[in-house]
Amino acid sequence: MTSARLDLPADHPFGIHHLPYGVFSTPDRPDRHRIGVRFGDSVLDLGAVTREAGVDWAIAVQQPTLNAFLAQGPAVWATARVWLQQLLTDAGRPADDGTTPRREAHHLTEAHLHPCDQVRMHLPISVADYVDFYASEHHATNVGSMFRPDGDALTPNWKHLPIGYHGRSSTVVVSGTDIVRPVGQRKGPADPAPIFGPSVKLDIEAELGFVVGGATDVGAPVPVAQAMEHVFGVALFNDWSARDIQAWEYVPLGPFLGKSFASSLAAWVTPLEALAQARVPLPDQDPTPLDYLRGPAESSYGLDITMEVRVNGSLLSRPPYATMYWSPAQMLAHLTVGGAALRDGDLFASGTTSGPDRDTRGSLLELTWNGTEPLTLDDGSTRTFLQDGDEVTISATAPGPAGSVIGLGEVSGRIAPAH
Amino acid sequence: MTSARLDLPADHPFGIHHLPYGVFSTPDRPDRHRIGVRFGDSVLDLGAVTREAGVDWAIAVQQPTLNAFLAQGPAVWATARVWLQQLLTDAGRPADDGTTPRREAHHLTEAHLHPCDQVRMHLPISVADYVDFYASEHHATNVGSMFRPDGDALTPNWKHLPIGYHGRSSTVVVSGTDIVRPVGQRKGPADPAPIFGPSVKLDIEAELGFVVGGATDVGAPVPVAQAMEHVFGVALFNDWSARDIQAWEYVPLGPFLGKSFASSLAAWVTPLEALAQARVPLPDQDPTPLDYLRGPAESSYGLDITMEVRVNGSLLSRPPYATMYWSPAQMLAHLTVGGAALRDGDLFASGTTSGPDRDTRGSLLELTWNGTEPLTLDDGSTRTFLQDGDEVTISATAPGPAGSVIGLGEVSGRIAPAH
Repeated sequence: MTSARLDLPADHPFGIHHLPYGVFSTPDRPDRHRIGVRFGDSVLDLGAVTREAGVDWAIAVQQPTLNAFLAQGPAVWATARVWLQQLLTDAGRPADDGTTPRREAHHLTEAHLHPCDQVRMHLPISVADYVDFYASEHHATNVGSMFRPDGDALTPNWKHLPIGYHGRSSTVVVSGTDIVRPVGQRKGPADPAPIFGPSVKLDIEAELGFVVGGATDVGAPVPVAQAMEHVFGVALFNDWSARDIQAWEYVPLGPFLGKSFASSLAAWVTPLEALAQARVPLPDQDPTPLDYLRGPAESSYGLDITMEVRVNGSLLSRPPYATMYWSPAQMLAHLTVGGAALRDGDLFASGTTSGPDRDTRGSLLELTWNGTEPLTLDDGSTRTFLQDGDEVTISATAPGPAGSVIGLGEVSGRIAPAH
Repeated sequence: MTSARLDLPADHPFGIHHLPYGVFSTPDRPDRHRIGVRFGDSVLDLGAVTREAGVDWAIAVQQPTLNAFLAQGPAVWATARVWLQQLLTDAGRPADDGTTPRREAHHLTEAHLHPCDQVRMHLPISVADYVDFYASEHHATNVGSMFRPDGDALTPNWKHLPIGYHGRSSTVVVSGTDIVRPVGQRKGPADPAPIFGPSVKLDIEAELGFVVGGATDVGAPVPVAQAMEHVFGVALFNDWSARDIQAWEYVPLGPFLGKSFASSLAAWVTPLEALAQARVPLPDQDPTPLDYLRGPAESSYGLDITMEVRVNGSLLSRPPYATMYWSPAQMLAHLTVGGAALRDGDLFASGTTSGPDRDTRGSLLELTWNGTEPLTLDDGSTRTFLQDGDEVTISATAPGPAGSVIGLGEVSGRIAPAH
């Protein structure tokens, strides 16, 4: 006896080396949000299977969000991963020798698997504080060149600290949620007064989100060397941006309504452990950062994740996360150095991921150079910024062990007309 | 039989016309956070008294924070207030005629009153999203004059929209919490490179915080005319600011570590209803704001609240909230116009409250003109910014009905040395 849905090819993007976590519901119990682990094209009901198996961390995953599991910290995250890999390996090959444990694993697993296309996905975490960084040198340089053509492209602080700001936690939505075009004030340099209406420069930002667990106390900074112990996993993130609203409002206190209408998080959170083979050294950092931003390469690393940005199916860009200047560990160390606490369910995002070449830029702002160089989609239509009805999908892959591929859960959203 | 603790003079700052809400615990049950209403120098255990009385909103106040009560909305808030005023009025005069209801009210109340000095206060809300505005024209003008001496003091957008930004929810702390001096990067214009260390420009910002209830959906803006239906109450707020850290980091994405180490909220939230007599017209707004920021005077109003800022007991300033340019209703309407949802427990703050005169400025930055004009305290010592051990207390009063005075719960904090 074998099971097609459990016996996956080694190169499946959601294979045994991936096992991302999410929150799902089934049509018969739409209000019951449950934690699931994706394996192939199925979702394993983690609360149900761990309760039945009697594992001692089961209560932390019998929850409507990942937050209680995030609170367990890296030792339990690792234990859970090992247990799941063993269970699913055993379950996938019950006929090899027919031993009782394998048969049990098979029955246990089969009873709690749901096909992906028969479940609905929900926001995997209750977002505590959400911080967005600005960690791509190419992105910051492009934006600076456009908006400060007569000055230095990078602000003087950029290479000394990972610039970040707090965003709105309550408008982080799960992938697949429609994005209603925001309305607001905008004023171009030539306009005599601001006007009010739907944004005409609705954009994307292709980012990586980092899901935090292991709360800390106020006044207890997390050093670079320990920072990744507080990162449970990563998920693709689209920080939708209304460039016209943002441009008018953001001086002097930063982005507000230009960002706070929606930010989309992928439904599947890839455990950091699944990305062990994707770790790459950071680009050279010159000038050398201050001590609190320095740490060993085993914690302060980049990630070899290649994104793909599509609008209505047309591939527009392949942003390489490996080109990011600041590491996630540096971002987290900076975030906490002044005394800020971490909570389970905190989310921080990288900022737009842009590489050095035009076809690796992570925003339409950069891809069309602020609308002056329209893009042509596969259907022959052109775009500067997003039109109503456009569907944006960001996907990504990373190297896994033994030549396997980790395919991160995509983040998508369709633009609905303004109210 | 009369009760000194229930039969208060009409001008008591925590009299029958005030009745602010907070969260307290008693020494015998330190982990049991309970909702209380302050009356005079006592705290009424609201969960216990409503359970015993059998009121139908009792379950919403048998909670460790105000959030579930905030979710009830203005009709229940008003019902609760009327019920409490009746109960406490009856309880305070049991001997007048000795009727049974009064005796019952007296017994009911006395059984659940705790002296203020025998309880510990906790953060009254679980803060969902926290937004800080910049609504004082005098403050924004002062800051602009200091930092952009060659340009216009106000940025071009300032009179068109209430500028705001998201802050860190997890570092909002209750009044009385020590504030550890933050460390971080700073770089003066003449420094060749940034240095790292404790902030040497630790400042206060005297603000009013607005506690939000009645959650809304994403994409459902709250117009000015309805905005105050989502404001349960107000509480004094001190947005501690490390000016040196902030100055180096804030371009282009706004304040981050200069603010995210701590923001102090008063323990007592004054119901908006208690401030009915404090409503005042806004200052003239010129140019006329866009339509979405306009609304009837009965919702878009200022508040005649006079603050007092003290350092180590020395009165430094009396900021008048009535001089604020933007109304709380305009701030809330702006916050949601782009589609952002509200959650129960959202908190927004006004930004520094500064009046036109030097002795009405709400920050040390302005009071000392960025440290160039030191202040002298009552003990003869001088201050530019805060020293370790300094205790800052912000209090405020507002007119109540029939000549009474509403004394808002103070917000205080003592500076502890950097770690």
